[in-house]
Amino acid sequence: MQNPFKNEIIIDGLQYCNWNRHLFEDLLNGGITAVQVTLIYWENTKETFEKINEWEKNFIKYKDIISFAQNSNDVLNSKKNNKLAILFGFQNSAPIGNDIYLLEKFFSKGVRFMQLTYNNQTFLGGGCFESHDSGLSRFGHAVVEEMNRLGMVIDLSHAGKKTCIDAINYSTKPVSFTHANPLFFHNSKRNIDDLVLKNLATKGGVIGLSLYPFHLKNNSKCKLEDFCNMIIKLVNMIGIDHVGIGSDLCKNWDDEVVMWMRNGKWTKKLDYGESKNNSISWPKQPNWFTKGSDFINIYEGLKKVGMRESEIFKILGKNWLRFYKEIFG
Amino acid sequence: MQNPFKNEIIIDGLQYCNWNRHLFEDLLNGGITAVQVTLIYWENTKETFEKINEWEKNFIKYKDIISFAQNSNDVLNSKKNNKLAILFGFQNSAPIGNDIYLLEKFFSKGVRFMQLTYNNQTFLGGGCFESHDSGLSRFGHAVVEEMNRLGMVIDLSHAGKKTCIDAINYSTKPVSFTHANPLFFHNSKRNIDDLVLKNLATKGGVIGLSLYPFHLKNNSKCKLEDFCNMIIKLVNMIGIDHVGIGSDLCKNWDDEVVMWMRNGKWTKKLDYGESKNNSISWPKQPNWFTKGSDFINIYEGLKKVGMRESEIFKILGKNWLRFYKEIFG
Repeated sequence: MQNPFKNEIIIDGLQYCNWNRHLFEDLLNGGITAVQVTLIYWENTKETFEKINEWEKNFIKYKDIISFAQNSNDVLNSKKNNKLAILFGFQNSAPIGNDIYLLEKFFSKGVRFMQLTYNNQTFLGGGCFESHDSGLSRFGHAVVEEMNRLGMVIDLSHAGKKTCIDAINYSTKPVSFTHANPLFFHNSKRNIDDLVLKNLATKGGVIGLSLYPFHLKNNSKCKLEDFCNMIIKLVNMIGIDHVGIGSDLCKNWDDEVVMWMRNGKWTKKLDYGESKNNSISWPKQPNWFTKGSDFINIYEGLKKVGMRESEIFKILGKNWLRFYKEIFG
Repeated sequence: MQNPFKNEIIIDGLQYCNWNRHLFEDLLNGGITAVQVTLIYWENTKETFEKINEWEKNFIKYKDIISFAQNSNDVLNSKKNNKLAILFGFQNSAPIGNDIYLLEKFFSKGVRFMQLTYNNQTFLGGGCFESHDSGLSRFGHAVVEEMNRLGMVIDLSHAGKKTCIDAINYSTKPVSFTHANPLFFHNSKRNIDDLVLKNLATKGGVIGLSLYPFHLKNNSKCKLEDFCNMIIKLVNMIGIDHVGIGSDLCKNWDDEVVMWMRNGKWTKKLDYGESKNNSISWPKQPNWFTKGSDFINIYEGLKKVGMRESEIFKILGKNWLRFYKEIFG
């Protein structure tokens, strides 16, 4: 059977993996065109530039299968060359500290996505785990302006509700949730309520739906059919043009990494994130999405719940590509 | 006439100067025992350690007139040796970024005071210039615990009201405003309302009253008598043991430094702070407090409005010394 993705643009809006040849090949062979890779969570400026250095080595080492994408044309060319396109993103604003001038420096190194916050409050705004969300701060307003000017994607994943609304309203360009689900699907601090989703869509933004177990109905036991029916409901609510996938897939990491994601350097105690039984391990992926190439299962699932193919491909990649083109060309 | 400060402990709770021999000698000859010096506003970790390096050079260069104080005994010994005691403080939490482990590293280098915020929101809490104050964040709670453990003074100057109340309540030790005035004296974003002042005192904290013109009634034209009557009113409200002086004196800087204090690296526009006419210059000091040795004028002013000498000396230094002893020994 020919891969139905062969002539389509398929984009995973966010993954956080300990990358190797096997993982790149799985995506490439699975027909995935591009993936945004997470460079950092808590890292400071210097540590972040070092992560970029490591990727420069990857682009040499794996030049037969991956290529660096800084704009939508790079994504298209990468597909033509039968390579997986890699886009850089930050899951926090820690790398810029309180220095607005660092944004352009990171942008010039190819960083195209930045979250304003990661669970906790930052200089820019409130995180989704905080009991009181400040909304966009004074610096946050200045940063949104600068990201608009540069063409860097404002990613509101892991932000608090007020910060989301403030940023959607203040930004002159559409914004995104690269990886999150609707709150109506599953009650999680990370998922997004109807009002915010509607505001996002009104301004032309995109949400990448997450496959991370804590964001899913019934967590690891989530059924593909439930996930696909959630997509139908969401499309009916905010429109077909505003929905994508951002799998939040985390592969090839030891368990200590999930605890580091939760605790960073901000506490000497242990924070278990959204684990209800204080697990220190990675949550188990649903059996229909254990690897990047399982995009095909979402494709099949959406067909099964009655979605037309042209709509499915908007969700699996075309919407991200349009959004990328609008934000960073 | 003998200097009335000769046998007394006189402490200026905060100054920000471009220090030189003349400035140290002015304080020493004026009978000042100790001063907290501001190391940084917006500086990151590395830049902050470099500031400490510079002070290590100062302690050699000026060893005949200054000495480094890391506890209250150091302050007393410094006076015995006829030297000015120098205590280190931060006017922001920028140096620790999101890394709680840095607190102990800075503490071990002698840093005894840290503000949670400087006008703007930080990882820890809300600033007094923000339109929405988050209160103490998740990281803010962790940092307050760690500062309590280490014995580092929590300085709420430049913080928002909710952050102040949260920190006063959450801290197991008394906290301070090293440099601010009551809001009843002058309406400024930097000044503190009655409720917060009462909470501060109830928990055993100290406010250092500021001589920075924007914190004073009639700004540069503030009369000594008005300042001293404010002290009487404040003492009646929160008690004699909770009032000190933190002059916020800024000497020997070019005008560009006041703009850097306001703008740091957080905006590409110009922020004028509390200057009502968008001045880019330092505000003019009131004529009775233009230099550190003008503490004598406050002493005379307080006598004139009828305060007893034993009370005056609590305000001019004894309260800070008691507080220092309680927090960092």
